Amino acid sequence: MDDRLGQAYDEFLHLTREIYYLAATGGILEWDQQVMMPAKAAPLRAAQTATLTGIIHDRMTSPRLKELLDRLEASRDALAADAQVNSREMRRVTDRARKIPRQLAQEIAHTQALAQACWVEARQKSDFPLFAPWLEKMLALRRQEADAIGYQESRYDALLDEYEPHATAREIEAVFTRLCPPIVELVREIAESGIQPKCTLLTRSFPVEHQREFGLWAIRRLGFDLGAGRVDVSAHPMTTGNLTDVRLTTRYNENYFAGAFFGLIHEAGHGMYEQGFDERHQGTPRATAASLGIHESQSRMWENLVGRSLAFWKYAFPYLQAFFPESTQDIALEDWYAAVNDVRPSPIRVEADEVTYNLHIVLRFEIEKDLVEERLKVADLPALWNTKMKEYLGAVPANDAQGVLQDIHWSLGLVGYFPTYTLGNLYAAQLFHTVEREFPDLQQRFEGGDFLTLKRWLNGKIHSPGQTHRAAELVRQVTGEAPDARFLVEHLRAKFRPLYGVSS
Amino acid sequence: MDDRLGQAYDEFLHLTREIYYLAATGGILEWDQQVMMPAKAAPLRAAQTATLTGIIHDRMTSPRLKELLDRLEASRDALAADAQVNSREMRRVTDRARKIPRQLAQEIAHTQALAQACWVEARQKSDFPLFAPWLEKMLALRRQEADAIGYQESRYDALLDEYEPHATAREIEAVFTRLCPPIVELVREIAESGIQPKCTLLTRSFPVEHQREFGLWAIRRLGFDLGAGRVDVSAHPMTTGNLTDVRLTTRYNENYFAGAFFGLIHEAGHGMYEQGFDERHQGTPRATAASLGIHESQSRMWENLVGRSLAFWKYAFPYLQAFFPESTQDIALEDWYAAVNDVRPSPIRVEADEVTYNLHIVLRFEIEKDLVEERLKVADLPALWNTKMKEYLGAVPANDAQGVLQDIHWSLGLVGYFPTYTLGNLYAAQLFHTVEREFPDLQQRFEGGDFLTLKRWLNGKIHSPGQTHRAAELVRQVTGEAPDARFLVEHLRAKFRPLYGVSS
Repeated sequence: MDDRLGQAYDEFLHLTREIYYLAATGGILEWDQQVMMPAKAAPLRAAQTATLTGIIHDRMTSPRLKELLDRLEASRDALAADAQVNSREMRRVTDRARKIPRQLAQEIAHTQALAQACWVEARQKSDFPLFAPWLEKMLALRRQEADAIGYQESRYDALLDEYEPHATAREIEAVFTRLCPPIVELVREIAESGIQPKCTLLTRSFPVEHQREFGLWAIRRLGFDLGAGRVDVSAHPMTTGNLTDVRLTTRYNENYFAGAFFGLIHEAGHGMYEQGFDERHQGTPRATAASLGIHESQSRMWENLVGRSLAFWKYAFPYLQAFFPESTQDIALEDWYAAVNDVRPSPIRVEADEVTYNLHIVLRFEIEKDLVEERLKVADLPALWNTKMKEYLGAVPANDAQGVLQDIHWSLGLVGYFPTYTLGNLYAAQLFHTVEREFPDLQQRFEGGDFLTLKRWLNGKIHSPGQTHRAAELVRQVTGEAPDARFLVEHLRAKFRPLYGVSS
Repeated sequence: MDDRLGQAYDEFLHLTREIYYLAATGGILEWDQQVMMPAKAAPLRAAQTATLTGIIHDRMTSPRLKELLDRLEASRDALAADAQVNSREMRRVTDRARKIPRQLAQEIAHTQALAQACWVEARQKSDFPLFAPWLEKMLALRRQEADAIGYQESRYDALLDEYEPHATAREIEAVFTRLCPPIVELVREIAESGIQPKCTLLTRSFPVEHQREFGLWAIRRLGFDLGAGRVDVSAHPMTTGNLTDVRLTTRYNENYFAGAFFGLIHEAGHGMYEQGFDERHQGTPRATAASLGIHESQSRMWENLVGRSLAFWKYAFPYLQAFFPESTQDIALEDWYAAVNDVRPSPIRVEADEVTYNLHIVLRFEIEKDLVEERLKVADLPALWNTKMKEYLGAVPANDAQGVLQDIHWSLGLVGYFPTYTLGNLYAAQLFHTVEREFPDLQQRFEGGDFLTLKRWLNGKIHSPGQTHRAAELVRQVTGEAPDARFLVEHLRAKFRPLYGVSS
């Protein structure tokens, strides 16, 4: 780079990092709202968030930043590789921001804070009508946003693009078309096997304080750095923050081991991605997630491909018994392993097994697409939810808290977010297939408590590149193939057919 | 107000409230840093805080805000009383902000975050040299700030003014001149009395979890609203936030009851002030503290004039015994009351008794004044600290953690803050004298568990006016007299001479 170009890039970096510091401040406000904030502070928090959002919007759309981006792009070939990534990605997000009116951005932020507070209450009371007006409002605002951004085929695409850049509803539909039939078939095979794991093992008494300690022990062993993060409780499990400050949440139920434990490992998978970026690039796109699909590939991999593996439990089971002697001393490892892999259609997504999980996603994807495209009214939502639950999973929730109110996403206007979970499952299986090819003894390493091999591999291949490649390209570069659903299908068959005595 | 003036005032309010929302966000960041933040996040937090400070500075010094203030002041007599308060106080703080260069404001914020993190570590290790370079830097920055602001007599005045508007070092010296001799005399009388309360009662085993519960019970009874606040643990007790979100911290020691308990009541006193402003004015000076002296009058009143009173313990003692049966069942109320009022020179300010407390303040005031006026070097600070401790209190700290490193204030550059504690003690005694005149049965009410009478009186007289009056004027209006040290002296004599069998 010549000096003047270097100066332009430095100024660009300064502006980019200031936006990051402000966004990270917004992240703390959001975390605080869900974990710490006193109830009466909701209106104040909404005003704080809206003010901050307005400032971030001003910065994202500032003429000076655009000028600098134009300047950098005009000399693109003279830029270092990292600088090319940063200018490309800041162009993408600032182009998006410029299409959204400031007032709309602020109103969305303001409504998120209040709608979320209402969702918490509605969920506690299982009172959908209480939440409905806020959902209406959130959806109307997000439709406005989608229309302001523009789209080719579906209004949904404009929202999906925020979470999974360049993906489309059509592609997501194609994924589900390939994925659902073999999954439905596998669910049928399992049901017909007549084998039922002893899942009451998981509903014995697991004192919350010991669950907390065991969870911390486990995520530390897997590689989450608690010196640069923390674990708390919130109504909906989540991960916020980046590199030196990554916060996970979970929620405990004394009489259900799997909810908090696998939830926490899931969040720790997100957390290790966030901790794994290249610190030299902190505050720039080069040190942020390639997409939410890639993000979910990390959480789902640690949760399922590690946390629900036999190898993991061969290592962890004696520790489990030490933490919960009264409830686990009489359990055989094989029964425990079968119990944590119980395949059973159930109403709660975050507690779903690996096999039925994607059916929860297709349901949400279809519904939210219809909501955004105004083919479905909010008032008709709970009924449709329950009908589809019956159809796809054969499990009707006992009430709306266990049904349509279970997820926080829509209260935050996160429409287009759910499909990234299924993309994550796809990517996870494909990446894991690759790492197992590179380390044929990976499962034995897990048995011996070595999870660092996997973590280091992910650090190098997936985490540290940040946004250097787009999601699909990253998967192709690392695995040698374009993303393909067959890896997930093969993994599910290979794992669950033997567990349920189904011949392949 | 005519329509155009009304519009100007509305715009002024909008800008003022946005500054408040940003400052409140800064408050959450600071609270989070002291209570929640992972250690490795300190540099990121420093950058976040500096960015936010820069934005707040831009807003405080914006030409539009100044224009609106000019417009409002030109029509001052046409403004409603509240609008007069808001424009007067925004003029004061924006005038101050305009004198401080943006970069200096940012550097102070950035340094605060890092210096504070270093102070936490230095205090843990009792390592003053580790902290010394940060203190040097903080002091240099604050000196720059004082010089930018300007002053008549002492550079110290420019800093003091931020916490106690319009007060001067000369006035503070006059207060100490009136206050110290009778206090030193009272300390001597008490020492010569030969009476020593059984203060080992306080160092029995008080399990932390029960201390936490008893503390929450107590502050709820006194009137702190936990629906609009919370209580956590931090290295240094503090209160942050306002109206709907007021956060207190304390710190527990299983073998010392008085530290956490009276510390928490102290913070709850601050908290009730913050919760007691007029909510309609949230986000404006009309709903913020008149001064830190008034703030401390609230915390010190609840801590000492209520929490260390015989009447309070007549009510609370059975509850204490219920929460800590093993450690308190054999204690007589009179012995407990004497123990929590043990007058004994000791090295820690926040654990000092009511009588010696102000000697801790005069020591800090003299030292920080010398530091700011460059008559004292940072390297000589620990030695001077210990010399003065010996001279004023006859108690030399065992190490620097118990000595010069005990308080967080200087790590945050809070120079000029300490004297507000003594002003608070003065104001508290004078205000309490007035409320006891209005409610001659106030002590009996405390005995019956009625603390609402006092809280309501404070809500009406002190809290809800916010910054309507300046501190000294507020005290004069409420008590009928200018602030006077004699009320504090009289209170201390009236309470402690009988306790120690000293004839008056």
